[in-house]
Amino acid sequence: MFFASDNTGPAHPQIIDALARANEGYAMGYGADAIMDRARTGLRDVFEAPEAEVYLVATGTTANSLALATLTKPWETIFCTPTAHIHEDECNAPEFYTGGAKLTLVGREDKMTAATLHAAILAEENRGVHGPQRGPVSITQVTERGQVYTLDELSALTATAHEFGLKSHLDGARFTNALVALGCTPAEMTWKLGIDAVSFGGTKNGCLGVEAVVFFDPGHAWEFELRRKRGGHLFSKHRYLSAQMAAYLEDGLWLDSATRANTACKRLTEGLRGVPGVTFDYEPQANMIFLHMPRAMHQRLRAAGAMYYVLAGDPDHGPDDEALPARLVCDWSIRDAQIDRFVELARG
Amino acid sequence: MFFASDNTGPAHPQIIDALARANEGYAMGYGADAIMDRARTGLRDVFEAPEAEVYLVATGTTANSLALATLTKPWETIFCTPTAHIHEDECNAPEFYTGGAKLTLVGREDKMTAATLHAAILAEENRGVHGPQRGPVSITQVTERGQVYTLDELSALTATAHEFGLKSHLDGARFTNALVALGCTPAEMTWKLGIDAVSFGGTKNGCLGVEAVVFFDPGHAWEFELRRKRGGHLFSKHRYLSAQMAAYLEDGLWLDSATRANTACKRLTEGLRGVPGVTFDYEPQANMIFLHMPRAMHQRLRAAGAMYYVLAGDPDHGPDDEALPARLVCDWSIRDAQIDRFVELARG
Amino acid sequence: MFFASDNTGPAHPQIIDALARANEGYAMGYGADAIMDRARTGLRDVFEAPEAEVYLVATGTTANSLALATLTKPWETIFCTPTAHIHEDECNAPEFYTGGAKLTLVGREDKMTAATLHAAILAEENRGVHGPQRGPVSITQVTERGQVYTLDELSALTATAHEFGLKSHLDGARFTNALVALGCTPAEMTWKLGIDAVSFGGTKNGCLGVEAVVFFDPGHAWEFELRRKRGGHLFSKHRYLSAQMAAYLEDGLWLDSATRANTACKRLTEGLRGVPGVTFDYEPQANMIFLHMPRAMHQRLRAAGAMYYVLAGDPDHGPDDEALPARLVCDWSIRDAQIDRFVELARG
Amino acid sequence: MFFASDNTGPAHPQIIDALARANEGYAMGYGADAIMDRARTGLRDVFEAPEAEVYLVATGTTANSLALATLTKPWETIFCTPTAHIHEDECNAPEFYTGGAKLTLVGREDKMTAATLHAAILAEENRGVHGPQRGPVSITQVTERGQVYTLDELSALTATAHEFGLKSHLDGARFTNALVALGCTPAEMTWKLGIDAVSFGGTKNGCLGVEAVVFFDPGHAWEFELRRKRGGHLFSKHRYLSAQMAAYLEDGLWLDSATRANTACKRLTEGLRGVPGVTFDYEPQANMIFLHMPRAMHQRLRAAGAMYYVLAGDPDHGPDDEALPARLVCDWSIRDAQIDRFVELARG
Repeated sequence: MFFASDNTGPAHPQIIDALARANEGYAMGYGADAIMDRARTGLRDVFEAPEAEVYLVATGTTANSLALATLTKPWETIFCTPTAHIHEDECNAPEFYTGGAKLTLVGREDKMTAATLHAAILAEENRGVHGPQRGPVSITQVTERGQVYTLDELSALTATAHEFGLKSHLDGARFTNALVALGCTPAEMTWKLGIDAVSFGGTKNGCLGVEAVVFFDPGHAWEFELRRKRGGHLFSKHRYLSAQMAAYLEDGLWLDSATRANTACKRLTEGLRGVPGVTFDYEPQANMIFLHMPRAMHQRLRAAGAMYYVLAGDPDHGPDDEALPARLVCDWSIRDAQIDRFVELARG
Repeated sequence: MFFASDNTGPAHPQIIDALARANEGYAMGYGADAIMDRARTGLRDVFEAPEAEVYLVATGTTANSLALATLTKPWETIFCTPTAHIHEDECNAPEFYTGGAKLTLVGREDKMTAATLHAAILAEENRGVHGPQRGPVSITQVTERGQVYTLDELSALTATAHEFGLKSHLDGARFTNALVALGCTPAEMTWKLGIDAVSFGGTKNGCLGVEAVVFFDPGHAWEFELRRKRGGHLFSKHRYLSAQMAAYLEDGLWLDSATRANTACKRLTEGLRGVPGVTFDYEPQANMIFLHMPRAMHQRLRAAGAMYYVLAGDPDHGPDDEALPARLVCDWSIRDAQIDRFVELARG
Repeated sequence: MFFASDNTGPAHPQIIDALARANEGYAMGYGADAIMDRARTGLRDVFEAPEAEVYLVATGTTANSLALATLTKPWETIFCTPTAHIHEDECNAPEFYTGGAKLTLVGREDKMTAATLHAAILAEENRGVHGPQRGPVSITQVTERGQVYTLDELSALTATAHEFGLKSHLDGARFTNALVALGCTPAEMTWKLGIDAVSFGGTKNGCLGVEAVVFFDPGHAWEFELRRKRGGHLFSKHRYLSAQMAAYLEDGLWLDSATRANTACKRLTEGLRGVPGVTFDYEPQANMIFLHMPRAMHQRLRAAGAMYYVLAGDPDHGPDDEALPARLVCDWSIRDAQIDRFVELARG
Repeated sequence: MFFASDNTGPAHPQIIDALARANEGYAMGYGADAIMDRARTGLRDVFEAPEAEVYLVATGTTANSLALATLTKPWETIFCTPTAHIHEDECNAPEFYTGGAKLTLVGREDKMTAATLHAAILAEENRGVHGPQRGPVSITQVTERGQVYTLDELSALTATAHEFGLKSHLDGARFTNALVALGCTPAEMTWKLGIDAVSFGGTKNGCLGVEAVVFFDPGHAWEFELRRKRGGHLFSKHRYLSAQMAAYLEDGLWLDSATRANTACKRLTEGLRGVPGVTFDYEPQANMIFLHMPRAMHQRLRAAGAMYYVLAGDPDHGPDDEALPARLVCDWSIRDAQIDRFVELARG
């Protein structure tokens, strides 16, 4: 019963196999390997974007920081939500990579809306050279609270960005979970509605550690390459990144894994929905659940070995019926039996 | 006949196997995995340094930049040679990670000496607040031209650094090749002679992509962890870095691989030494050869499929007997037959 | 009727005279001038802090940025209010000088309270290496909306900072206006209640351009000097900064000028208080007034040559009785006649 | 007898008078003052460059760093000489402002030549994404050793830069001393031969502290303004910078002051040329002399109160006839009597 994170489960065996297969003979380093050609073609095909420039890095923080640094001047501010990974979970990496840009928090919720974004943009850069200048909008899809923007919501956000001449970036650490939830294509979720750059996650969806950065405007390519190198993120034995991404895209593995994770999450949600004492903080829409459970329920689950994050309070001490918040995450490898056992334990 | 680089050959099968074995069940992310405990213990044992703090990253540029940033203030200068990787091959990564420190080039040769280092240190920081302040000394072992510092040479360098109260860092991208060449222990080549931090390479010696940063003074630990995270270099699925390093150190694989590479290089050197027209630019001491060969010899080798870098000039056009410089690198996977064939072709 | 800012009026003639007097003969550069000894002693005397290290720079943004950079690591976050100058008016200078630190906005008001500060600090750094680490608290006194923290309020803030082991910085661009309003001593408003560093403003209070940075802990001195130099803020002909500060502190000119400004502001406030249609957004406590006036009143004043900032809306077009916000600032040079004329015009 | 530096003498009385005159009434801040219009026009006239964008800052390090940061990407390297102020005397300010660019030292002499520059440029950026990329060339005129590039020499340098598509910057801290020495116009020494940006010094030539940055391509303007603001270098009471520059350019004061300094230096040079034991390290061409004098001569001069820098060795202890290097600088305020007395003392 391991629901701690989608980075704690195993990689998909097909990815491991691909690594082993990639380990034959000699291959040019630094992205000039032949497998990268396959990965690049795969990404362009998936995004229906033959002109796009695509790059591989090993972590999501890297993908976000390098993509944003390429779109942002040091004197600008990036618009994101208060729960965005780039704000809360990257130890100032965007500030570091941009050379000291600011992050402006849009609204007070997990999702931004065209209205809160519009207000936030208006509030910046009304003081000439004195204040930060307006920079790109970064949208997290799936959000850090497990919500999925609809295509209409995304369109409204990019339209707002464009109204002010701003670029937009999609933090897609859980890109495919959103895609599967929406039932749309990558193109529909990105460039067709005006996204300029995407962090396309593989790590949380069955890879060992690989993320693609996709620029629909190839004009950003060379700057990105230089930023990647000087950040230490250009792999010499690049074929092992390429192999992960190529295998991830092959035969729909990426879609299949995200579908499994979302399906598992739905099963868990439905199981818990009927359990007295469980309340959902957000309606689960992809592969993450944020809920409150009474302390006694936490104790029962944890005693039985369930792994997940209690987000506040001490699960071990206090009144039995006090509700404590928690996060449950499903990845591709969770099995139904684990889910059912969890629900059963919750029920008591 | 692939002598282009020690990052173009395959990873050792034992490393791949270790990845597959690590891919069982759940593991905490971000370095809290159980395999990291083994890797940490392995590194501390190998260095005979139970107090040392050790961290894993995926590239050599990262190991160097993060280690140096931890030892250097933005207003300081790092002392290194003109051929150092940190100067020539990292696209200003040390300048980026330190927040704008400078690199002072020591001497004009591939190796620094106590005398050239002393002179370079003396020449800095004689102008109070106006000039850069003296920062750490970074020593590359094996050098980028394939030379190995003796323990006496290293001691003289660290003694010079200490005379001015400066720290020292060892760029050990080819640490084990040097170790094997010298026949000493890691402790003897590092902390016993006063090295403060080491970039301990795995990638060039049979891993997919893993380097350890070793601080003998654990006081640097927390700052390093924060720098690693905000650089995007903390892996969520860290077990795949841990597994590489643990397997690398197990049963002497690291020593065995470096021994193979150095032995291959010796065989190649001896074979080429008798060939008319071949001159060595440096005496090969580990796994790299820098030499000049006549154009006709280059043409013969390349036509037969030999892969290596011609460092200047056009091998395809010009007089047959013009000598052109080249670099040949051996890794663990090179076989005797390839070497012998190369020598035979050189001989013509 | 010039109420646009306290940086638009003339410098005090005594400051100009001091510059002329300083222009005799030769003087060592870079802060080693004899007048700096007087300025340093003057500042230490005024703060009753003989051990304090004090430095001069030419702008308030510089004083804030360099002081904060000395107190903050790049992976930390600085706590300040949403209206703080360092957040709104320095074009990311603190982010630049700290090497990419973040600013966490405390509460939603112009003044922070111990409660909002406590909540903001608690909300950061509960995620280990992943989030920004807690850095110093920066308090603006007088606030950017013309409010003055009481000594009790300041004590509560520094006590909260200390509870978490954090340093505190006072942005005192209008330090003396606050001092005069509170009727306390500089020591009482700073180190006696736990402030670690002060930006002590001179520019807005009658100087041409000089601010002191005061560190009560001299351990910060050398780092600050290096940061000042590499920021380009160390003046070669430093005597002209020294002369301003020395003259500013002599014979109570600094107190006298701030008293004039505050008194003028009080006269203006009292004059406007009785005027129908005028509403105050904040209770004026030093030398700045934030109010709403009907459009017709704005038009009358502006037509007569009154200069001040209308903060939103178009004063020239729209209904006569629509209230538009404005800022009025008094400096030392404003005369009663101007104030009375302004009030008279407002009255209509 | 004060020959320590051209930043230790008094400002010209006309500059002080201009400050006093500027101190009348109200003036918009941040460069929007009316005097700036005069200064701007003055600079454009002097440079015969009506389209140029010009900005004022207070120090030479600032002018250089901001100008270079505007022309340089963080992954590039700036070409300059080993004696350049930006390399030796700015405590890594260019590295800081560019966000971590590198400085490549051209040749080993005080002046670069087209040949050494060509070689230095060729040696960089032959390794794709791995090495630093080629950035602008920064030329110091007058050099830090008192030498003046001829127009032909400058043309050869800018032609070399252009051959590689690189921009060029002129560090003109002593711009006018060079101009007077060459007897040419500012346009001839800058844009007519291909200079893109100039640090035009006022401080060392009779101002209190003001330097202009001149961009002949106005496309750099907005970026420069933002960089100046976030560096803390935009003065709120900007009129006091404007007044210095306007007065400096009025009635040829700038030319007159530099002529006086150069003439004084020539008198000093000629006086010392005949003195036994004096040897010149460089042929003085503007207002600085680098020479060797025997220890006894140093002792005689210093005992009589002469002020200048002894650059190495201990003037007080050692053999009488040992030659020690020194620097003598003349500014506009040096009088003939001082010079003659110095020469007389040197003669003994």
